[in-house]
Amino acid sequence: MNLILINTTDFIASDTAVLTDHRFEHIRSVHKPDIGALLNVGLLNGAIGKGEVLELNDSCVTLKMSLEKEPPAALPLTLILALPRPKMLKRILQTVSAMGVKELYLINSYRVDKSYWSTPILNQIEEQLKLGLEQAGDTMMPSVHLRKRFKPFVEDELPEIAKNTRSLIAHPYNAEQCSAPESIPTTLAIGPEGGFIEYEVNKLNQCGFKSIHIGERILRVENAVPVLLAKLFPV
Amino acid sequence: MNLILINTTDFIASDTAVLTDHRFEHIRSVHKPDIGALLNVGLLNGAIGKGEVLELNDSCVTLKMSLEKEPPAALPLTLILALPRPKMLKRILQTVSAMGVKELYLINSYRVDKSYWSTPILNQIEEQLKLGLEQAGDTMMPSVHLRKRFKPFVEDELPEIAKNTRSLIAHPYNAEQCSAPESIPTTLAIGPEGGFIEYEVNKLNQCGFKSIHIGERILRVENAVPVLLAKLFPV
Repeated sequence: MNLILINTTDFIASDTAVLTDHRFEHIRSVHKPDIGALLNVGLLNGAIGKGEVLELNDSCVTLKMSLEKEPPAALPLTLILALPRPKMLKRILQTVSAMGVKELYLINSYRVDKSYWSTPILNQIEEQLKLGLEQAGDTMMPSVHLRKRFKPFVEDELPEIAKNTRSLIAHPYNAEQCSAPESIPTTLAIGPEGGFIEYEVNKLNQCGFKSIHIGERILRVENAVPVLLAKLFPV
Repeated sequence: MNLILINTTDFIASDTAVLTDHRFEHIRSVHKPDIGALLNVGLLNGAIGKGEVLELNDSCVTLKMSLEKEPPAALPLTLILALPRPKMLKRILQTVSAMGVKELYLINSYRVDKSYWSTPILNQIEEQLKLGLEQAGDTMMPSVHLRKRFKPFVEDELPEIAKNTRSLIAHPYNAEQCSAPESIPTTLAIGPEGGFIEYEVNKLNQCGFKSIHIGERILRVENAVPVLLAKLFPV
């Protein structure tokens, strides 16, 4: 936890917040701050700054908040990801959130196992995203959209989403090499393990998506995501 | 498993291999090939190619091997990594291996918990590296070196390792932005969660290492590794 996320409901005065939950436990057991210590804090969907420890007892910590800085810049990206298997989904939600993605569509694809749509992790999305924000020192919650049907999503919604953006599919066949990093509006589609099937690639191509590859090696989705984001966007 | 790794001991003739273990189980249950089907295979530390299924029964699969291609190029990199915590170590070994790192030093550092050095995963290094190779379609086993003492490693070994290479520490403070991707000999040091301490950074600086950062966001080691490799080397 490189940043402690504070909610508006934690405030007891305009500049004072009191924490009693897992964040309090974490501060007490990991940070172990002295009175007067400054902790990295951020208001959920707001500014970041320092929280001065005013009081720390057995049940709560009281912080004097000074929030003056903008959170790190977001990536100008809409990420479209075939729903990964549950174990991986958890980590990918954290990764995506830590790396500054703010728009994520989890979509169906031929190679997405139907059972993946009933994983309880889909009910913990916000929790996983918060872990990513706390890791990266960000406060801006990503929006996650679930789309259980591929065709209507690609035909009816995607053209509007991808309009005026660099539209790319991570797909190793008939693909161009990933271009130099550029901070421009981008829509990136990443398939499931095993990749999108030809029909799906064709549908995405018809929607203006261009296939790119990241080399000869086939990476797992959990590594392909950070590699692609690192290649497409400057630091 | 995008490639099935074959050992010289699997061969029963110069061009015929028989598999009976977990690879056979995987082929039978996942690939479910017809007779005559071509599977992606590679000789451990050798060439890659196709294995034609000659026979598949309840106890083994017989493959006619045709190995003609070089495995994907390695990264010209020696990676020096503070030993990660066990759960992460497993995944990082797979990642490092899948991405083409061939020289890995797992070293001690002030913030590496002593208990990490007794994890049973350190006895499964080869197994984890193989999973990475099978994922990426590579055959060349990385060399992994364990160094339980920071100072003697940095003072006595590192100067020779880093000689005539681009020598970098991933360290977000007083750091330069990561330079453009270049396929040149590189030595990269990555600290533990929480980072190298000042003493360690100084020791590495004295050895010619320059600090680089990859942006404002603090990433977990398992994401920092793929991001750094993607930034430092071209596809």
